[in-house]
Amino acid sequence: MTLGNCLILQDFKSEPFLGWLEVEDGKIKRVVKGRREDIDQPLEGKLVMPALYNTHTHAAMSLLRGVAEDVTFEEWLFGRILPLEERLTEEMVYYGTILAQMEMARNGVVGFADMYFHEDAVARAVADFGLRALLTRGLVDVGGDDGGRLKENLKLYERWNGYDGRILVGLGPHSPYSCSRGYLEKIFDVAKEHDIPVVIHLYETAQERYDLEELLRLGLGEVKVIAAHCVHVPTEKLPLLSKLNFYVSHNPTSNLKLGNGVAPVREMLREGVKVTFGTDGPASNNTLDIFHEMRLASLLQKMKDPSALDVETCLKMATVDGAEALGFEGGAIREGFEADLVVLDLKKPSFFPLKHAKRHLVHAFSGEVFATMVKGRWVYFNGEYPTIDEGEVYKKLAEIEEKLYS
Amino acid sequence: MTLGNCLILQDFKSEPFLGWLEVEDGKIKRVVKGRREDIDQPLEGKLVMPALYNTHTHAAMSLLRGVAEDVTFEEWLFGRILPLEERLTEEMVYYGTILAQMEMARNGVVGFADMYFHEDAVARAVADFGLRALLTRGLVDVGGDDGGRLKENLKLYERWNGYDGRILVGLGPHSPYSCSRGYLEKIFDVAKEHDIPVVIHLYETAQERYDLEELLRLGLGEVKVIAAHCVHVPTEKLPLLSKLNFYVSHNPTSNLKLGNGVAPVREMLREGVKVTFGTDGPASNNTLDIFHEMRLASLLQKMKDPSALDVETCLKMATVDGAEALGFEGGAIREGFEADLVVLDLKKPSFFPLKHAKRHLVHAFSGEVFATMVKGRWVYFNGEYPTIDEGEVYKKLAEIEEKLYS
Repeated sequence: MTLGNCLILQDFKSEPFLGWLEVEDGKIKRVVKGRREDIDQPLEGKLVMPALYNTHTHAAMSLLRGVAEDVTFEEWLFGRILPLEERLTEEMVYYGTILAQMEMARNGVVGFADMYFHEDAVARAVADFGLRALLTRGLVDVGGDDGGRLKENLKLYERWNGYDGRILVGLGPHSPYSCSRGYLEKIFDVAKEHDIPVVIHLYETAQERYDLEELLRLGLGEVKVIAAHCVHVPTEKLPLLSKLNFYVSHNPTSNLKLGNGVAPVREMLREGVKVTFGTDGPASNNTLDIFHEMRLASLLQKMKDPSALDVETCLKMATVDGAEALGFEGGAIREGFEADLVVLDLKKPSFFPLKHAKRHLVHAFSGEVFATMVKGRWVYFNGEYPTIDEGEVYKKLAEIEEKLYS
Repeated sequence: MTLGNCLILQDFKSEPFLGWLEVEDGKIKRVVKGRREDIDQPLEGKLVMPALYNTHTHAAMSLLRGVAEDVTFEEWLFGRILPLEERLTEEMVYYGTILAQMEMARNGVVGFADMYFHEDAVARAVADFGLRALLTRGLVDVGGDDGGRLKENLKLYERWNGYDGRILVGLGPHSPYSCSRGYLEKIFDVAKEHDIPVVIHLYETAQERYDLEELLRLGLGEVKVIAAHCVHVPTEKLPLLSKLNFYVSHNPTSNLKLGNGVAPVREMLREGVKVTFGTDGPASNNTLDIFHEMRLASLLQKMKDPSALDVETCLKMATVDGAEALGFEGGAIREGFEADLVVLDLKKPSFFPLKHAKRHLVHAFSGEVFATMVKGRWVYFNGEYPTIDEGEVYKKLAEIEEKLYS
């Protein structure tokens, strides 16, 4: 398939040019400058850019969006979220994850890291809808026993890891405060054994203080880690973290919304720590929009220094670094690369002047993208979701809303 | 005209219900619960809500969007913005203001407060496009002479104040650091004489320290004031400000982007100071989107206290309080009120669960609105701008981009 006659931004470092692409078998076969007359998918007035990645979420919490506004973290979690989560069935988690992917596709996100329960239903939803994902089962043993969760996570790995080149499975120790030291050690061992990543909440709240050297002794330093939040990470530990296979998932909206503050992203980047963007779950954000996180992250770092988190750094974090954290090839539109694309409509008033289109991607893009492609397949195109029956999905969602909230 | 068969949110305090409206002569004639069969404008699957107001901008700076990213305030203003502003003609300001209104209409904003030059062209653009505006000519006498600016501002007042019930004219003293004390006193006198408001930048940067009592003696306390920014206002002065006819225009995006910080909005509200939302100019934001400012403002105040700036307070500030600051009737969909409406498409994944639709307006609405009505006339409807020739406008804008940036 050929597509284009539009602006193409090949990667975060380049500038857009007029051109077209050829996509074959899920890969980019050619990137050509100029116009082509007989094009399969004309995209006049559009811009094609590398896709975005969401490195931390709990996708099915899309069902719980807005249930707990304007309350403390404790009330949010224990008063509102947990009682509702107890009512979530596998079918609900499946449709919640379909809904989350609809939103992500609409916002140019092609891959996400998930941590939740009924994770097998999450995998089926990803298989069906068509995004990429790094899936983990949330692991907790605060009661002294993990209730078979690690076993579930391994079953998920056996069943889904590598599926269609789009699904990867890691392990999901919830946090050092909800996992015993022995349990963490076991999880890191399993991760090493299978060479799979670990997703963990780390230094989210001001109350969280850890002996980082102890966590390293347990194995944290020997596996690939996506550490969500890192708002209250001691800055003197950053040089140490920069030497590890360690990716911060920066979740600026959720960190503000739950009263946790602003992560020291400038300091992380200065010390060479890899930082990517995540949304956290839709019950503490309340969207799944990496364009929003990118803009907010930049604004928050500029609060003290207007030169901080510049346009190219933001785009790099949202594309290349996000893909690398999840374990997918991505972040560039080049021959031989996976055909993961985002198409934006430039016919919007906030894209003027067009000369600065690349800057507008970070600071002036508001609203959904025009289309999103994963592995050569449109998962969102001009208001439609080609991979699902939208009417059927909304019917199911209305039933779920009725059941959950009645 | 009848419209509806959709959810209607009458004001910030109420909850949405299914209903329809009748609009006649630019006013809301009836608001009726339930469905109506023979409806002129069916809006199934939509939500109608009161319109939003942008209480501080420099609209024509839409032409300068993105020219100065990731630089200090000094470099932004003196190195990039001022040299380009010297090249702006009346025609450019006219089209820049058309473009800004296209963006605002697309984001549900029906009225804005402006401060710029070639303000007569701004007035013509507002007359033609159809938004509401409080217009001021930026007034500065740092060189000892104001170059006829106050005279221009008064001419603007004589020519445009009251036009079509949509245009009001105030005075625009730029700031206490760019206006001499004598000049400020004269401006306040003229404002009193004509009973018109004053728009001023106040306490934007950490360097700005004022003798507030002196400003009051000059007349600040005897006129209606919209004070943009107020990031570094001394909190002990808030009780005093709460007793005046004084509206803060809170511009959270611009304040972060230019490195000025976060305004003490919680403290302002606690002390009874009236706070509204503004975007500032598109060269320091870079959008004209009050939904974005509302969400960001709430997140920033929650940074330290997750219960701060709750959903209803945000909606009140963006609607009722914004309209009041500008001097228009607005903020509610009620019989006899001006027919200023915003229509949102609920068929977006981030609006689930629908039960919490009102909360989603603040925390989960991303993307443009479906339609915006001012005085009974659609200024934006499903991708189209009925009041202008969009093709012609974009042609002119392309020519302007060429002239400005070549």
